[in-house]
Amino acid sequence: MMNKLLVFQTDFGLDDGAISAMEGVAFSVDLDLNIRHLTHNIPPYNIFDASYRLYQAINYWPEGTTFVSVIDPGVGSTRKSVVARTKNGYYIITPDNGTLTHIDKFVGLEEVREIEERKNRLKNSELSYTFHGRDVYAYTGARLASGTISFEEVGSKLDPQELVRLELFGCKKIENGVMGQVDILDVRFGSLWTSIPYEDFRDCGFEFGEDIQVEIFHNDVLVYSNTVNYGKSFADVAVNEPLIYMNSAYHMAVAINQGSFSKVYGIGVGPEWKIVMKKA
Amino acid sequence: MMNKLLVFQTDFGLDDGAISAMEGVAFSVDLDLNIRHLTHNIPPYNIFDASYRLYQAINYWPEGTTFVSVIDPGVGSTRKSVVARTKNGYYIITPDNGTLTHIDKFVGLEEVREIEERKNRLKNSELSYTFHGRDVYAYTGARLASGTISFEEVGSKLDPQELVRLELFGCKKIENGVMGQVDILDVRFGSLWTSIPYEDFRDCGFEFGEDIQVEIFHNDVLVYSNTVNYGKSFADVAVNEPLIYMNSAYHMAVAINQGSFSKVYGIGVGPEWKIVMKKA
Amino acid sequence: MMNKLLVFQTDFGLDDGAISAMEGVAFSVDLDLNIRHLTHNIPPYNIFDASYRLYQAINYWPEGTTFVSVIDPGVGSTRKSVVARTKNGYYIITPDNGTLTHIDKFVGLEEVREIEERKNRLKNSELSYTFHGRDVYAYTGARLASGTISFEEVGSKLDPQELVRLELFGCKKIENGVMGQVDILDVRFGSLWTSIPYEDFRDCGFEFGEDIQVEIFHNDVLVYSNTVNYGKSFADVAVNEPLIYMNSAYHMAVAINQGSFSKVYGIGVGPEWKIVMKKA
Repeated sequence: MMNKLLVFQTDFGLDDGAISAMEGVAFSVDLDLNIRHLTHNIPPYNIFDASYRLYQAINYWPEGTTFVSVIDPGVGSTRKSVVARTKNGYYIITPDNGTLTHIDKFVGLEEVREIEERKNRLKNSELSYTFHGRDVYAYTGARLASGTISFEEVGSKLDPQELVRLELFGCKKIENGVMGQVDILDVRFGSLWTSIPYEDFRDCGFEFGEDIQVEIFHNDVLVYSNTVNYGKSFADVAVNEPLIYMNSAYHMAVAINQGSFSKVYGIGVGPEWKIVMKKA
Repeated sequence: MMNKLLVFQTDFGLDDGAISAMEGVAFSVDLDLNIRHLTHNIPPYNIFDASYRLYQAINYWPEGTTFVSVIDPGVGSTRKSVVARTKNGYYIITPDNGTLTHIDKFVGLEEVREIEERKNRLKNSELSYTFHGRDVYAYTGARLASGTISFEEVGSKLDPQELVRLELFGCKKIENGVMGQVDILDVRFGSLWTSIPYEDFRDCGFEFGEDIQVEIFHNDVLVYSNTVNYGKSFADVAVNEPLIYMNSAYHMAVAINQGSFSKVYGIGVGPEWKIVMKKA
Repeated sequence: MMNKLLVFQTDFGLDDGAISAMEGVAFSVDLDLNIRHLTHNIPPYNIFDASYRLYQAINYWPEGTTFVSVIDPGVGSTRKSVVARTKNGYYIITPDNGTLTHIDKFVGLEEVREIEERKNRLKNSELSYTFHGRDVYAYTGARLASGTISFEEVGSKLDPQELVRLELFGCKKIENGVMGQVDILDVRFGSLWTSIPYEDFRDCGFEFGEDIQVEIFHNDVLVYSNTVNYGKSFADVAVNEPLIYMNSAYHMAVAINQGSFSKVYGIGVGPEWKIVMKKA
């Protein structure tokens, strides 16, 4: 059952009229929609972050919520537009460019349909080629979230296996520990969120309060090596001290209590940045 | 008919309690208002951008929506406060300082009234002289959008010709092409949005895929000259290649696919920046 | 009476999925909540600003509104979590770290209760130690604002005198004038908001249009000394001229008309920055 909740995510920022035009289109479909905003500050064109932020937030929403994610460097190309239904009853509308990667892996996709753009397009927007977020995605998201059209009416079925997927590094078991990738930052606080799931870390036998050897590599060059305490939360170490903790998305992370680990040690994110946690 | 939609735009930013105080005032008038935000990141005191962003978003909203725009460097001066009804049924509340320029030109004003501030002011705010956004505009916008008062009750009629207007450069026909001004940026992506309407450009006979001569002048000094491909969308050219395209506000624009034209070539906006598009 | 209005404030920023997860948790409690955002750009860990921004906005909201403020450097420590009811009928949920200081002084607390976290916690979030904003505060705020639980059911009474409080400098009477602290900036415009209440300033006998001696000290060193005109609003002085005015929170402030006083003179905020206003 649709619940009238429609959640937008883009890389458009909040400095111009773009998001407001999308809202206006949606309210023109149904004044009773409850439109919310995940974030509009996805770094421009960054599909990995779009995929991650969806995963970070989605499971906390009521069943039947519709998400519209528009990080769309390929707008105007032949990339498909899709709508997915997750196994736990969320709907996601997005260009088919990898945005569904984390949802597919950690939540599970039940069915995917390709948006038939000629039918699912704001009236009189045929000349507009650069703002599918407004003309196709917000419009279709609003029609779906409001129950104006059904999931099936959006377009025909697509094999989920055909979707574009990003490569995820995940977690590798190593001697006495685990290796992952620095996936993304807790942007505001500079903590490193890794691709190592809590379960894999826990299975190494680490315990709260234990000092753990942390090594960070940039293109295979060791750039950080230290023992770091494993805590429940930041307050378990002194201000300005580093710690390992499980983040709110249930993956392992490294932070400095009231400081920025990323800035202090110059650590970035992505496939070039690997991290090891092992017995000290 | 009012639809309870109340849309705020300011240059106040989102870092303090100002916007929240405005929301609180409005919900105190009517808990059932649907308050939305166009943008609060208009550059401080920039009335041109305020006017443009309203124009960029307004036509996508349902008829009967009320907009409150507070870019108000003259707060506390003798500048008037006005409410306008557009020809297509929107309401806009704003200081009379040029904010209605684009709406007047591209949407059309049906009737304008001057806000009688002594009647239309939050109770017990008489000592407050610096925050009309809260004390007058949000309050009056909420009373109008909720149907508490009618358009006529806001104040007496004003001749629309008396409104303060900004000068718009528009489009000049030149030999084999058109000349306009760089009006504003697509802030997030660095694309240049010009004052050249799509129709004037099209009337020059340009076609998709054509290479077009683009010249940009800063105070009459040529600072950019190159042939640029005319595409439907960014994906029509390679990453990091420039293109001409029609933007989502149906004016001509120049961009770099996945890059910032403004930053790469140091191009700014406003009357000092002219742009020519002509046959190569 | 609860009014279904739930207002969030944090220092989490708007760049990731954290705020959206909090919204999702709240809507999962009650789809009819009206969730609003005070600001999420409180400088990281800055409890003083959190306290001030709540005070700046709260009195403009309808009675019965619930605020959730999460500036929580002590998450995971033994700091308490509390819910307060103000004398004028607002509810505030926050860690007990000083966030209620301004509300206590300028609005008044009627009753405070300690949140019993084991009972008031999102289901299946027991392993999560770093995001009480989502797991405890948004969840409990939603249950309170929706009427799912009563104020009394949140937990047992706490003596308001036991709450952590920040020291407020307030206003000192000096010869021919008053002395205060630079409390906070009007961030967007660079104006200095001082701890001097309008009434104390007025009692010195200053009048609109009067030139007043302003002195600013950094750690007791005089860093600014000038006569500044006392105006109703910015437009009372020429562009780029300084003025003294009463801000929208009814305290005295210093600004430059269409400029940033803070940037031009390098003035900061906090206990190190004192300001004197006296007869010239």
